Amino acid sequence: MMKKMMISPVSFILSFLLIIFFSSHAAAQDFWPSDYSAPQGPAGYSSKKSGNITVDDFVFSGLGVAGNTSNVFKAAVTPAFVQQFPGVNGLGVSLVRADIAPGGVIPLHAHPRATEIILLVEGTVVAGFISTANDPYIKTLKKGDIMVFPKGLLHFIVNSAPSNALIFASFSSDNPGAQILDNALFAKNFPSELIAASTLLDVAEVKRLKGVFGGSG
Amino acid sequence: MMKKMMISPVSFILSFLLIIFFSSHAAAQDFWPSDYSAPQGPAGYSSKKSGNITVDDFVFSGLGVAGNTSNVFKAAVTPAFVQQFPGVNGLGVSLVRADIAPGGVIPLHAHPRATEIILLVEGTVVAGFISTANDPYIKTLKKGDIMVFPKGLLHFIVNSAPSNALIFASFSSDNPGAQILDNALFAKNFPSELIAASTLLDVAEVKRLKGVFGGSG
Amino acid sequence: MMKKMMISPVSFILSFLLIIFFSSHAAAQDFWPSDYSAPQGPAGYSSKKSGNITVDDFVFSGLGVAGNTSNVFKAAVTPAFVQQFPGVNGLGVSLVRADIAPGGVIPLHAHPRATEIILLVEGTVVAGFISTANDPYIKTLKKGDIMVFPKGLLHFIVNSAPSNALIFASFSSDNPGAQILDNALFAKNFPSELIAASTLLDVAEVKRLKGVFGGSG
Amino acid sequence: MMKKMMISPVSFILSFLLIIFFSSHAAAQDFWPSDYSAPQGPAGYSSKKSGNITVDDFVFSGLGVAGNTSNVFKAAVTPAFVQQFPGVNGLGVSLVRADIAPGGVIPLHAHPRATEIILLVEGTVVAGFISTANDPYIKTLKKGDIMVFPKGLLHFIVNSAPSNALIFASFSSDNPGAQILDNALFAKNFPSELIAASTLLDVAEVKRLKGVFGGSG
Amino acid sequence: MMKKMMISPVSFILSFLLIIFFSSHAAAQDFWPSDYSAPQGPAGYSSKKSGNITVDDFVFSGLGVAGNTSNVFKAAVTPAFVQQFPGVNGLGVSLVRADIAPGGVIPLHAHPRATEIILLVEGTVVAGFISTANDPYIKTLKKGDIMVFPKGLLHFIVNSAPSNALIFASFSSDNPGAQILDNALFAKNFPSELIAASTLLDVAEVKRLKGVFGGSG
Amino acid sequence: MMKKMMISPVSFILSFLLIIFFSSHAAAQDFWPSDYSAPQGPAGYSSKKSGNITVDDFVFSGLGVAGNTSNVFKAAVTPAFVQQFPGVNGLGVSLVRADIAPGGVIPLHAHPRATEIILLVEGTVVAGFISTANDPYIKTLKKGDIMVFPKGLLHFIVNSAPSNALIFASFSSDNPGAQILDNALFAKNFPSELIAASTLLDVAEVKRLKGVFGGSG
Repeated sequence: MMKKMMISPVSFILSFLLIIFFSSHAAAQDFWPSDYSAPQGPAGYSSKKSGNITVDDFVFSGLGVAGNTSNVFKAAVTPAFVQQFPGVNGLGVSLVRADIAPGGVIPLHAHPRATEIILLVEGTVVAGFISTANDPYIKTLKKGDIMVFPKGLLHFIVNSAPSNALIFASFSSDNPGAQILDNALFAKNFPSELIAASTLLDVAEVKRLKGVFGGSG
Repeated sequence: MMKKMMISPVSFILSFLLIIFFSSHAAAQDFWPSDYSAPQGPAGYSSKKSGNITVDDFVFSGLGVAGNTSNVFKAAVTPAFVQQFPGVNGLGVSLVRADIAPGGVIPLHAHPRATEIILLVEGTVVAGFISTANDPYIKTLKKGDIMVFPKGLLHFIVNSAPSNALIFASFSSDNPGAQILDNALFAKNFPSELIAASTLLDVAEVKRLKGVFGGSG
Repeated sequence: MMKKMMISPVSFILSFLLIIFFSSHAAAQDFWPSDYSAPQGPAGYSSKKSGNITVDDFVFSGLGVAGNTSNVFKAAVTPAFVQQFPGVNGLGVSLVRADIAPGGVIPLHAHPRATEIILLVEGTVVAGFISTANDPYIKTLKKGDIMVFPKGLLHFIVNSAPSNALIFASFSSDNPGAQILDNALFAKNFPSELIAASTLLDVAEVKRLKGVFGGSG
Repeated sequence: MMKKMMISPVSFILSFLLIIFFSSHAAAQDFWPSDYSAPQGPAGYSSKKSGNITVDDFVFSGLGVAGNTSNVFKAAVTPAFVQQFPGVNGLGVSLVRADIAPGGVIPLHAHPRATEIILLVEGTVVAGFISTANDPYIKTLKKGDIMVFPKGLLHFIVNSAPSNALIFASFSSDNPGAQILDNALFAKNFPSELIAASTLLDVAEVKRLKGVFGGSG
Repeated sequence: MMKKMMISPVSFILSFLLIIFFSSHAAAQDFWPSDYSAPQGPAGYSSKKSGNITVDDFVFSGLGVAGNTSNVFKAAVTPAFVQQFPGVNGLGVSLVRADIAPGGVIPLHAHPRATEIILLVEGTVVAGFISTANDPYIKTLKKGDIMVFPKGLLHFIVNSAPSNALIFASFSSDNPGAQILDNALFAKNFPSELIAASTLLDVAEVKRLKGVFGGSG
Repeated sequence: MMKKMMISPVSFILSFLLIIFFSSHAAAQDFWPSDYSAPQGPAGYSSKKSGNITVDDFVFSGLGVAGNTSNVFKAAVTPAFVQQFPGVNGLGVSLVRADIAPGGVIPLHAHPRATEIILLVEGTVVAGFISTANDPYIKTLKKGDIMVFPKGLLHFIVNSAPSNALIFASFSSDNPGAQILDNALFAKNFPSELIAASTLLDVAEVKRLKGVFGGSG
């Protein structure tokens, strides 16, 4: 349909015009690695100045190491959310690593701003979520399975096997947040009487769990 | 800058050209009242055909009557979500009415897809939400006060006064959903052992509450 | 399926590991109460620093008092938009209170960035909106009724009854804006000749209304 | 860093594996040309079946011809919104062509769901919009100038020159809608008394304009 | 602050009122597993009817098996996009598994609708993306590292090590799409002369690669 | 339905109450012209202070002049993206002007964050895009035609006629970005061996094009 164009020495130099037109101010238009010290707002953190952005803003090595599971849940969660991984700021996706010892559990929790997909890399687990119609959707997952927990719904993972489970979970937000039921109720100073009134849990049970999670009130 | 134009009889007729250009196919472009029998998807319900849409699709009278508070929470919630109010389909906002008898409570719950603002029309209540840092934000509200519960976070309302409380709540979605903690755990067949494992609640307490909320398992 | 875990004194202490992993930097991730003195942008205001955020950022008491209806419209509108209520910044919902004296009117206007639902708490009104097909959707509302005005469309409310009307309106944005037709045309210095040319209103009528609304030009 | 790979005859055949993995069901994932006869909803029209999609769905020739300006506004607007141009369905952008004869005007109107940028291809015009603070932003544009009308705000264009003006306007939505003030008020059966009450326009002026635009009531 | 409420036998029964109010029509409001045979549109597929939804819609086992890398790229990509995994429909996140043999490569490509995070589960790779300022951001990743490829940018992964690499990648969309440069240019009937004209590639090189990828024209 | 209201001198003054309620803080709520020196983030630039915003922020004159086509592509692209046109910041739409000399080409490229519609104002061109199913959608356009390139897909325009072509293109984002294939690969220091490995292009061809586009490595 058309011949290959001749490329003269002059056009070598002039070819940059097209490039320049498109790329002015472009440095920070594709990504916004977090400047944690600048103002933040509903869309995320302010961006680092483009001159300060390097490939290291886009790489995160913290998920390569197993977390310490010597705790009441026999589990550890290591996040690479926007609070830890500057490169995902404003880009709508993030990860966590979860290690669960035998008999351990990722306790019941919800992510206020994200759907989650878990990927079981090692082990066997029972995972589930509860819909707003109160129906439990629970299944035993084997290595290589993935399961989606729709946005904002309570979910949990139990390591029902005799070996460690390793999970990587992906989120539909760089700032998913996580509201762990036990921590929300029992880790700080949510008054026990209000907890009892708004959940119908027995006050003695509330106070026992406040002991476990360090809460007061 | 310019004179008022003369409007001749001919222009009367021709003036409709401009109108017609803009309004072809317009009937269903501003709103999509739900056709509950047609396919639905992530953006909501399919729209009624434009010829079937009337002003009544945009008006809802169900919030004018107090709900029945003769239940374990001494409270009633009457929603005007997209499931009940076809006119809000796809429009990103909805309402509920909450009636709370003295000593009653809107139990701990979260909306997976919406921020909520409550408006206290009658009474005095204690309202609060818990952040993902586990900090409670709790305040006694008086008539006319409004309070915002950020998207996806657990919250509750307790009627601490000797008279009825009347609340209208607004949501940042026409499909906010509501996950009531007690119902999610205790109303259906979420296995008690998994509840205990993923919350550290005592199994006996779990079973007691299953009795209250009608759950099995 | 699994036994309740033993909680040893050691695990009491170690249980915080899981908490800490999830909650680092969490303070400002769920909400962004406006810092009105910091930079703002398309997503809203910058957030207050987390150490400065309290429950009072999430509660607003300005809607508890009736507005002064001694004006040409015999009506008053009191907003709790993000400009007044810092807690809703970035959260996608806001409210206003409207008081309308007998014979008063919320004049024809549109919200450039939001759908609105009105809730009639007291009185009887005639409310309506106009679609882009130019069809009016008008209905007489009684106490307790709600009506939705789809995003961006012109709408109005007339108090046709002999008593005051009290309305609370909810919006699908924390920054809905409001463009009141009379104010947009007649309150400032929009040149009368341009108004006449672009609306076909008689210039004399334009100038009469400029007198009412204080405009010049 | 690495050598160029050898491409054996076997790999020729097997190379399609990678292709196939990514492209299953792909036909309709990049675009959704409107099937105007299938259900529609808040996200737009249902898509044609992929087998029925051709390049012609993505090309529209209707803007190549000047509209008929023999009407009261001496102007014509030819849209390529999703209602006319199936290829833009769900893709968030659309166009219109506007022709304005000398002394003509694109009357005051707003787009409920879009920002607009106008491009003046021929002529000289006075264009402007009004902010929600009621401030007019008005400027005389010359050939080649562009001007942005922020989302949902009232705006207009007047051809103040002795030659035709040709404008192409772009929108931030494939379904921007257009609410022309005169048509919204005066073209159908919006009751004149309600118009007068909600705008303070003189009833006689309302009825005169109903005559111009064909309205009743 | 308040006492625990008495739960009488009567309240047992009545307690369902609150549940029912919130949960009418709830079955399909939290998720929309794809009904691949129903109409689809810009927001995704229509949802299965709620009675047909089970936990199996939310679990996908296809990523547990290594893909066949006996192809020109010595690599295989197995997607769990919405086209394969019904449970993610409308939920904004999806996954793929990538297997790369020694010397293999995930060829240069971009996802038109998503940011991607890769997680290196086994092996050592060189990964990189190119910004719109034409700057390459390239890094050697070790097991456990993650790297983000901002939305829509060209990127690639090379297995520079003597062992297999195993990667799981997460996307900020359930429908990210993938445009592989070689396939886009050389796999079908994109005319070679137009490819040469629009890329300045030598026509002979274009035809050679058409041979590799099976294209014509 | 109701009589026209009397407008007394007192109500003249009081009418401003309604105005004031709605317009407090309104100056910057409708638009956010870029302050290029303030922090920027995922939602765009910070806004100028409202006192510094004038109509000139919303008008851009740079597209009225033809670009210089004396370069290797015989084409020039002049953008009015948010990086050049402050008024579109956060408003979701932008434009470019493209001039293509006879035999010139807008080379193969994609916009990572936007759909594009081209409008052919002068000339005849061959335009096309490639889907993720690798299907080319190519058509010869005549003056006045428009064509849509769905979000993120590779596309090109060739001026196959003996006269200049003039195109204006609209985008569904104020920050669409542009990734030109040749520039991405050959203009900077993307290592030639990695290019060859990830595209299967011959290394000699890669180096030849690096010569044309000024790249190294």
